[in-house]
Amino acid sequence: MITFRRAQASDLPDIVAMLADDPLGAGREDASLPLAQGYIDAFNADPNQLLVVAVDGGEVIGTLQISFLAGLSPKGAWRGQIEAVRVAGHRRSGGVGRLMIEWAIDACRARGCSLVQLTTDKGRADAHRFYESLGFTGSHLGYKRTL
Amino acid sequence: MITFRRAQASDLPDIVAMLADDPLGAGREDASLPLAQGYIDAFNADPNQLLVVAVDGGEVIGTLQISFLAGLSPKGAWRGQIEAVRVAGHRRSGGVGRLMIEWAIDACRARGCSLVQLTTDKGRADAHRFYESLGFTGSHLGYKRTL
Repeated sequence: MITFRRAQASDLPDIVAMLADDPLGAGREDASLPLAQGYIDAFNADPNQLLVVAVDGGEVIGTLQISFLAGLSPKGAWRGQIEAVRVAGHRRSGGVGRLMIEWAIDACRARGCSLVQLTTDKGRADAHRFYESLGFTGSHLGYKRTL
Repeated sequence: MITFRRAQASDLPDIVAMLADDPLGAGREDASLPLAQGYIDAFNADPNQLLVVAVDGGEVIGTLQISFLAGLSPKGAWRGQIEAVRVAGHRRSGGVGRLMIEWAIDACRARGCSLVQLTTDKGRADAHRFYESLGFTGSHLGYKRTL
């Protein structure tokens, strides 16, 4: 049975390994041990960042992060932003991602958010269908600029 | 001369008035005084949310919010996310927005962010040109789901 919980520091090597096991992540992450201090600092940085793991039989098989965002608009409502969604390579295409996003939506609702938001690469048609099937509307363009 | 500073609680009525003076905002904000407590709670909620005002001759003429996001990927780097960008109606199309975004990019750099990101409605071609002229790439689709 797949369960979900807040990540612990001891989960970080598994999580970073999943972030690195990705065509984009391979070039920008460093999963070597001991983990770079930046990962540990980020994990401890902000209580409004919820790092989550999906666990099956004691094995970490998925991860995502929810940023709980306080903002004035609309009417001071909190929003939940889902990021860094990854499923372990050998468990992909088995429905784990759907369970993870459904869990994250419930977590946002429990935290009093009025909206859940995320961005995904424009070219990933499979991801677009996936999020639309979960009730999301792709109404926005996401812009990024590296510094 | 237009200057920029962190917003104070006394700026909130001006800021919410700008949020409400917008085709979308008119239906979802409440700028009546005294301000609804939700706005004040949101303003005080999180030190990683930076609410900014642009001021000219003592008058608040613009606002935006920067969410500083700690995350594991990439390599524990902070990201800055720009939201709730508004310019007072009588000062639009005068270059204020550009100064505001340039200020925000500098603020993200000063805070050690590796990336600045934002989303904007898919239909707003003028906004797309604006952000592209400021060095942003519209590489992602932004999905939202209301709760």
